[in-house]
This record gives sequence, structure tokens and C-alpha cells, in this order.
Amino acid sequence: MTGVAGIDIAYESSRQGGLEPLTALVADELQAVNRIILEHMNSQVSLIPQLAGHIVAAGGKRLRPILTLASSRLCGYQGRRHIHLAACVEFIHTATLLHDDVVDQSNLRRGLSTANALWGNQPSVLVGDFLFSRAFQLMVADGSLKVLKILSDASAVIAEGEVQQLITSNDTATSEKDYLAVVGAKTAALFSAACQIGAVVSERPEDEEIALESYGRNFGIAFQIVDDLLDFSARQAELGKTIGDDFREGKITLPVILAFARANEAEKTFWRRCLEDMEQTDSDLAHAIELMHRHGVLEDTAAYARAYASDARDALAIFPASPMKQEMLELIDFCVERAY
Amino acid sequence: MTGVAGIDIAYESSRQGGLEPLTALVADELQAVNRIILEHMNSQVSLIPQLAGHIVAAGGKRLRPILTLASSRLCGYQGRRHIHLAACVEFIHTATLLHDDVVDQSNLRRGLSTANALWGNQPSVLVGDFLFSRAFQLMVADGSLKVLKILSDASAVIAEGEVQQLITSNDTATSEKDYLAVVGAKTAALFSAACQIGAVVSERPEDEEIALESYGRNFGIAFQIVDDLLDFSARQAELGKTIGDDFREGKITLPVILAFARANEAEKTFWRRCLEDMEQTDSDLAHAIELMHRHGVLEDTAAYARAYASDARDALAIFPASPMKQEMLELIDFCVERAY
Repeated sequence: MTGVAGIDIAYESSRQGGLEPLTALVADELQAVNRIILEHMNSQVSLIPQLAGHIVAAGGKRLRPILTLASSRLCGYQGRRHIHLAACVEFIHTATLLHDDVVDQSNLRRGLSTANALWGNQPSVLVGDFLFSRAFQLMVADGSLKVLKILSDASAVIAEGEVQQLITSNDTATSEKDYLAVVGAKTAALFSAACQIGAVVSERPEDEEIALESYGRNFGIAFQIVDDLLDFSARQAELGKTIGDDFREGKITLPVILAFARANEAEKTFWRRCLEDMEQTDSDLAHAIELMHRHGVLEDTAAYARAYASDARDALAIFPASPMKQEMLELIDFCVERAY
Repeated sequence: MTGVAGIDIAYESSRQGGLEPLTALVADELQAVNRIILEHMNSQVSLIPQLAGHIVAAGGKRLRPILTLASSRLCGYQGRRHIHLAACVEFIHTATLLHDDVVDQSNLRRGLSTANALWGNQPSVLVGDFLFSRAFQLMVADGSLKVLKILSDASAVIAEGEVQQLITSNDTATSEKDYLAVVGAKTAALFSAACQIGAVVSERPEDEEIALESYGRNFGIAFQIVDDLLDFSARQAELGKTIGDDFREGKITLPVILAFARANEAEKTFWRRCLEDMEQTDSDLAHAIELMHRHGVLEDTAAYARAYASDARDALAIFPASPMKQEMLELIDFCVERAY
């Protein structure tokens, strides 16, 4: 492990914002996580590391395992177990990404071809199962039944949330409550579990466990709301990122729910045609965004995210000030600010 | 629990062969397994119990959980843990069936429409994930890290076997060794785990654990070889069951491997057209079966199954004679005899 001085240097040199400062604080451990991921996605069946390697590389910024590392360190943890458990969290996340892309029939993820686009649905389903099994093998090797309970419960809740999302797709009658239930399950359950196990490995009192569970859950909800908002964001379009994926798939997210609730009859007909009948023309996304601006929907969606972000911030109040706490708080701000 | 006398009566009244005598010996426990399955496949998301109920009902004869119950009882186990673990085993099996049917694009399973045919691929993938998570939740509630290790290892091996099978599909160069590796992983791994955990919950010495692992593994291989044989069996066709599913999907099973190895050039061309190019006409299945008869392939495939069945029988030698042992041995004979 890097000594305190080394970490401080990394911390000071990375004030550019975003996830980077927090990543810098756990840089050595995150490298160790990546090594464990590479090691454990191996198999004599060569298609498995090929396909798993693609999604692990494309999977992005390792936000969830970073949360496990950061939460453990916030609790003063000094051992190495959190590294293995962070890899479990990433394996569960990666397995759900593989299955999500099959379910959504997605061809692109972060600008790269999806595994199902490159290799077909069949190995994507099966390699997802493999990575999910690997996650449990790693947990079993760690040996904590409490961690196993937290992550197997989270896995069941994630699957329930994904099925619920499937049911609400194309249904403009979906309520805010239904939407928040889906987000709480499909996204926030893994964020909260990732954070909670940081307190568990540190053998900290229950109030710290509850605090980190709450930080992760509220941050996860805020994160997903902002993600759903960005799919209609002119700012995101300016940055060259694709927008309108959810709209084209007929997903009913918070901006759509708010826009539909405020719609006149003609607008309701528009939303139903686009999202229920799935009859869309090239100009429909722009019109949808225009309607959202007209009804102040994007600002109000961002206000929802800010409310959950505020709860996430409050959850950390019981921890004393430290660079780690500071960056865990700033991560929330960054997440909400990217809505603008 | 039924007393010994009750079990003996059930045992004596069920000599019609097949799985029934063994099922009768564990009848009460199997009912308890079914109750746990129904209870734990429940969810507020109503599509989950609907879809899971369909596959659980269509899933058949509960062979794998019966193996867990029988193995536990063979080891003299008197508790109730084996009932929960048998339900885990069935959940893992059911999850793989759901994903298999998506991967194979199957429309029928045991004469009923598959879940993917009725509800689409999307919920089948996700409900499979849910049932897999439920299996781990049940194991965690049981609390044995040893059982968790056995079943998480088996789950990873099953997924590897399924991917390997995908790779060997449509490849007439597949060797017997490749085939046996696939069968050992995709089928026998769960049979062996189901049996081994019977010794684990009974806290029996390691030689009994090894014996039951070997019984399950060799029985599983024999079972799958016979299953693959029956897909080309005139006898199965006479019974009104579908044949040729594997052939139509281009799966390379042992009868095909043996037939291809003994084929002249014209026959090799036939096999390649049907299974690699997937160009099949209505008369091709009958011709394939005719070629298998010409080369004595089905008899030799059955001989393979008998060899593994014999190893499975030998594995139980260390257990004293009992009605349970007798029926576990007769189950193997029944499995191999159904090839005729």
C-alpha cells in the first residue's frame, strides 16, 4: 500500500474534479481491484475472457468498486478484503450490463459496440452468468456471511428492478412512485451495498453501516435520475454524446413522467404515439425536448436529484472530516452538477 | 416427517420403476421443497412468479433436488437443512433452463411453450437472474460456507460449459474429449454438487462426500449422454416425443461425433451440410439416424453411458445396504435403460 504521504500527493495533484480526486485517493487499491478482475474473469474457455474483457474495459470508470474502497477507507479499514469485495461488486455490475444490453437490444455502450452486437446475445447471456458466479466465488473466498447476504439480497433486488422496468416500458401511466421503485432497485441497490460492505469489513458500529448504506442508496438514486435527465440534455448533445436512447427504447423515465403529467391532450397524444405505439419520426426527439423545456421538466427533474443528493450528503454527517469524506461529498456534487 | 414405517409403505407401493420409487422415499421432503420454491419465487413484481411458476411447473421431475434429499438421507441426515438446499439446487437448475431456452431460441420444453416463447427473451433473462440470486439468498440463510463454495463453483462451471457448448455448436471437428468436457460442466457439475451437499449437511467424513460427488458426476454424465442419444432414438419417436431437436440446432453430441468419425466422404459432406452450413431438408433427420444405425453409433453411445453409470454405481459401494441406496442404484439403471 502507498503510504499516507503518497496518497496525499495523489490527492493534491488531482483537483480537476469529477471522479478523479476520489479515484486518486484509492489509486493503488483500484489497480489491485483491476488485477483481481482480470485474474478471475479468466477461463479455459477463451471466449469468456475475450467477451468479459471487452465489457470490463468498456464498463467505464469503476464507480461502484471505488465506492467500496472509499467507504472502507472512510471507516479506517487497513486490510485487503475490500479489494476483493470491490471486484465482486464490479463483477455483479458487469454481469447486469451484459444482460441489460441483451434485454435492451443495445448496439452501443459508451461509444463502443456492445458484447451482444459483437458476439451475439447467446454468449452475452452466458458470460453474464459466469461473471455473476465468479462474484459469488470471490465472496465465498472472503468468507463473510454478512457480506454474502448484503450482495445476494442486492442481486435479487436488482433483477426485480430490471423486470419492473421492463413492465413500465412503453407505459405512460407509470407513476413517479413506480419510477423511483425501479431506480431504487436496479441502480441504488448496488450503490448502497457497495458502500455498506465498506463498514462491514471495517467491523464498524451499526450506525456507520446504516450511514454508508444511506449514502450509497441516495447517491445511487440521484445518479440514475441525472442519467435519465442527461438523455434529454442539450448540454450532453453539445458534448458529442448520444442523447435520446431511452426515448427511442420507449423507457419511461422521470422527465417523461413529469412532461406527461403536465401535457395537454395534443401533447399526451404525442407522448403515447412515440413511447407506447413506438411510432417515431426524426424530429420527435427534438419536439420531446422542446416540450420538456416548455414545462420546466428538466429543472424539476434536477431538483429531484438534488434532494436525493442532499440526503446522501447528510448521511455522511457522522464521520469526522477527512480528505476521503470530502471527496465522497464532492462526488455527489459532481454527479448532480453534470446535469447542467 | 414421515416415520420409517410410512416410508417403507411408500417404498413398497411404488415398484413401477423410473424415478418414482426414489421420489416416494423422499415424498414428504419433496413436498416441503416445492413449498419453499413457491414461497421464494414470489415477488411484488407479479411477472416474476408468473414466469418462474411456468418454468418451475414445466421443469419436470425435480431430479436434482431429489438427489440432494436422497444423498442426505443416505448419510443418515435427520434435520431440515437439506430441504432448503434442495430448493437452491432447483433454483439454479431453473435459472439455467430459462437462459438455455433463450440461448437455444427454443419454443418448446416438455411439450409446453417455453417462457421465452410466451413472454419474450427479456423477462426470461432477468427472471433467470432473479432465481439465481434467490438460490444464493437461500444458501446464505443456510449459513454453510462449504455449501456456498460447492454451489458457486458449480454455477461458474455450468456457465463455462454452456459457453463451450456454444463454441462447439456447428463444428463437426469437435472431439469426444471436448464433448465430455461440455457434458461434465453443463450437466454433471450440478448433479455432483447436489449429491455432495447431502454429505456436507450430514457432516459425514470426507470419503462419503467424495463418494456422493462421484456418484452425482458420473450419473450426470451418463444421464446427458442418454439424453443426447434419445434425440436420435426411434424408440423415443414411437413414444410420441419429439426427436431431432439437437440435430436441427446443429449441436454436436456424442452420436454425431461417432457417426462423423466413421463417415465416408459423402457422409462427411452430409453432416457438414446439415450441422455446419445448417442446410437441412425434411428427410435429413431420418438419413442421419439411418447413418447412425449403419455405423452402430447408437449402441456405442449407450456403451459410453453404461461405463459412466457403472462408475456411478461403484461410487456408492462404501455405503451399507438400505432401501435408499437400492433406489439410488436403480435410478442409474433406469436412466441408462431408457436408451432402449
